[in-house]
Amino acid sequence: MAPIPYAELSSDELKAIRKELKKEYRAYQSQDLRLDMSRGKPSLDQLDLSMGLMQVLADGEDLTCEDGTDCRNYGVLDGIPEAKELLAEMGEVSPDEVIIYGNSSLNVMYDTISRSYTHGVMGSTPWCKLPHVKWLCPVPGYDRHFAITEYFGIEMINIPMTPNGPDMDLVEKLCAEDDAIKGIWCVPKYSNPQGYTYSDETVRRFARLEPAARDFRIYWDNAYNVHHLDFDHPDILLEILDECRKAGHPDLVYKFMSTSKIGFPGSGIACICTSPNNLVDIKRQLRVQTIGHDKVNQLRNVRYFKNIDGIMEHMKLHAQCLRPRFEIIEKTLHEGLDGLDIGEWTEPKGGYFISFNSMNGCAKDIVSRMKKAGVVMTPAGATYPNGKDPHDSNIRIAPSFPPLDDLALASKIFCCCVKLSASKKILMDRGDY
Amino acid sequence: MAPIPYAELSSDELKAIRKELKKEYRAYQSQDLRLDMSRGKPSLDQLDLSMGLMQVLADGEDLTCEDGTDCRNYGVLDGIPEAKELLAEMGEVSPDEVIIYGNSSLNVMYDTISRSYTHGVMGSTPWCKLPHVKWLCPVPGYDRHFAITEYFGIEMINIPMTPNGPDMDLVEKLCAEDDAIKGIWCVPKYSNPQGYTYSDETVRRFARLEPAARDFRIYWDNAYNVHHLDFDHPDILLEILDECRKAGHPDLVYKFMSTSKIGFPGSGIACICTSPNNLVDIKRQLRVQTIGHDKVNQLRNVRYFKNIDGIMEHMKLHAQCLRPRFEIIEKTLHEGLDGLDIGEWTEPKGGYFISFNSMNGCAKDIVSRMKKAGVVMTPAGATYPNGKDPHDSNIRIAPSFPPLDDLALASKIFCCCVKLSASKKILMDRGDY
Repeated sequence: MAPIPYAELSSDELKAIRKELKKEYRAYQSQDLRLDMSRGKPSLDQLDLSMGLMQVLADGEDLTCEDGTDCRNYGVLDGIPEAKELLAEMGEVSPDEVIIYGNSSLNVMYDTISRSYTHGVMGSTPWCKLPHVKWLCPVPGYDRHFAITEYFGIEMINIPMTPNGPDMDLVEKLCAEDDAIKGIWCVPKYSNPQGYTYSDETVRRFARLEPAARDFRIYWDNAYNVHHLDFDHPDILLEILDECRKAGHPDLVYKFMSTSKIGFPGSGIACICTSPNNLVDIKRQLRVQTIGHDKVNQLRNVRYFKNIDGIMEHMKLHAQCLRPRFEIIEKTLHEGLDGLDIGEWTEPKGGYFISFNSMNGCAKDIVSRMKKAGVVMTPAGATYPNGKDPHDSNIRIAPSFPPLDDLALASKIFCCCVKLSASKKILMDRGDY
Repeated sequence: MAPIPYAELSSDELKAIRKELKKEYRAYQSQDLRLDMSRGKPSLDQLDLSMGLMQVLADGEDLTCEDGTDCRNYGVLDGIPEAKELLAEMGEVSPDEVIIYGNSSLNVMYDTISRSYTHGVMGSTPWCKLPHVKWLCPVPGYDRHFAITEYFGIEMINIPMTPNGPDMDLVEKLCAEDDAIKGIWCVPKYSNPQGYTYSDETVRRFARLEPAARDFRIYWDNAYNVHHLDFDHPDILLEILDECRKAGHPDLVYKFMSTSKIGFPGSGIACICTSPNNLVDIKRQLRVQTIGHDKVNQLRNVRYFKNIDGIMEHMKLHAQCLRPRFEIIEKTLHEGLDGLDIGEWTEPKGGYFISFNSMNGCAKDIVSRMKKAGVVMTPAGATYPNGKDPHDSNIRIAPSFPPLDDLALASKIFCCCVKLSASKKILMDRGDY
């Protein structure tokens, strides 16, 4: 028998269903579970794949760069040449367009906004001297992005996401008419949390943007560039620096990447890729901030991954860890929710997340029910600026960390919570609860 | 025959000496030298001592912390417990007073000033909203410190250094009367460039400071805490956090340290040590800036050095590399300049530098002559804010990097340049040049 949408059931039928669901829920609770689906952390089997990173500079290995630089000593502000080459290959840019940083691209993004706030962008007025700074935030999006702009008191404007990327009509309109808008957060490939990849048309419209503010920059966080789940059918993203150059706007974009979700999270190397003008501007500050980042770790990453082929081989092994985790969740969601019309979700071909939309007004309730059953999710609302989801419907599911069995169980519990929450909502809306 | 001070020689005698000196100088020039005494970089033999750092996490070593944290994965904002313990031991503070950062204490200092500029200190007005911010700079001092305050447009006020530390009468007076003064740069042990260590009285007067600005902080860059040249007779520095607490000013100081000049420069771990109130204030920002610093590298440092005893044994080996380098320079300076009254220099018991003071108006000329003879020195003026030495007399000598033979030769050339410059100056002052 095909499932019937909850909204088409009578209140008595819904109440009967809720009775069964509550029994099921109490059974989960009695298991005293401690599961965590909150963050995009790699699993232990995935981490084990990178243990060779610890070996590659051991046994008296020479720590000298190709250009003769001794990586052990001070010096080299913007990264050793072979690290620039590796990340340039990964980002499909020229090594001349790259600065290698420390262990965290999030830190690079923070520092980039902080520098713009204290010193402006290529000679513009420092943002701290302006009465008001605004930012475009495709939603749902990445909570740590929003936390940075929030911290600097920047007003965030929600931009709806579509499977092709942000609503570009709105982006173009707002950018053109308001010079207080200084940037936009983008995760253009396997977006966090939906797993969407921006279409060619979206990328080209970004490259052609004519913002009123000359210090407007696109913050292009290409965190999941090589993070395919299916290497036979990967998403393809147009290279943005190249498109901006072609459109006559070479300075419009900062592209961020790292090896954090390739090797060990927190022990990788991060970078910014951007135009020569932007690089000059950035280095003027960078040389005051540091003598240089960790060159030994740069060398470690290069000696281990070697080149883009080495990275891709490695990422295929990652996919073997990640794909079954996505599949078990998607399978369980289909089994539990298909046909009920109480939730929908994305089925990404890469990245670290699934985006789930419940009925409006149910997300907080679902996450709270999950917590009481021993499963920690990303807080509801986290995918929106200031933690405020106007529909209270989006939930980020992070399948990467838990073992498969835990994920199977957690997804079943999730279906139970979604159904409990939706049935309650429908009954309340009818005045029948 | 005892040497006669240049000023007591007749102009003809000086001219005769200059003829010989020029011959000597041309002989050096003809050797086509490429020597570098500009920066406090460890020598290759010193770097070789730390190669074990590359071994200690190899061979399948478990990368789990004592508290069960997997160092390979995301998490832990302020450092793994054992890294806090190690640096707390080194800094004579409690692990609770420590945040572990990335590879560079300079970067931590930059970020600390940047945060104060954008967000204030423990609730104070952000410095970017103030009409004017000032800073106290003991001189001569560290060029990279001054570069940070200069970058943020902060007015720097010179404070004369003495062998006991900064002129505290002046520090106390200025701090008390001007609430635009927000901080002071200190290298309290084996200071850069003199190698002075602040006396107990100086440390206590710092702890008792009553600055007009409640967001005033002492920036205590304890870069050379364990960097003795003579482990039988090390300088002793009072612990400043403890003194501040005793004086009823627990929040007055930020102490910075790192393992950069213990293991590999640029690949160490840095930290800030400060009061609980300051730590809360800092972490409020830090958790926006990053998910966490490189825990694997923290573990690497801990597994290799183990504890303060391990660090001290290691630093004794460093001293064996560094001491002969200081000695050859000091010996050559004595042989070349004693009794001539044209220069004086410090003879530190630790750290990385010797401070040389020429006759007024000669430092730039000496460094320029050195360069033309193939020896790069730290630029004259670099030890003063904005690169302006009001006496044009201070030169920082960095003996740590070159091999002994090179240092012997470079010091001879240095004596020759000092004598050429001084004799010219005296003759010009007499109108006899």
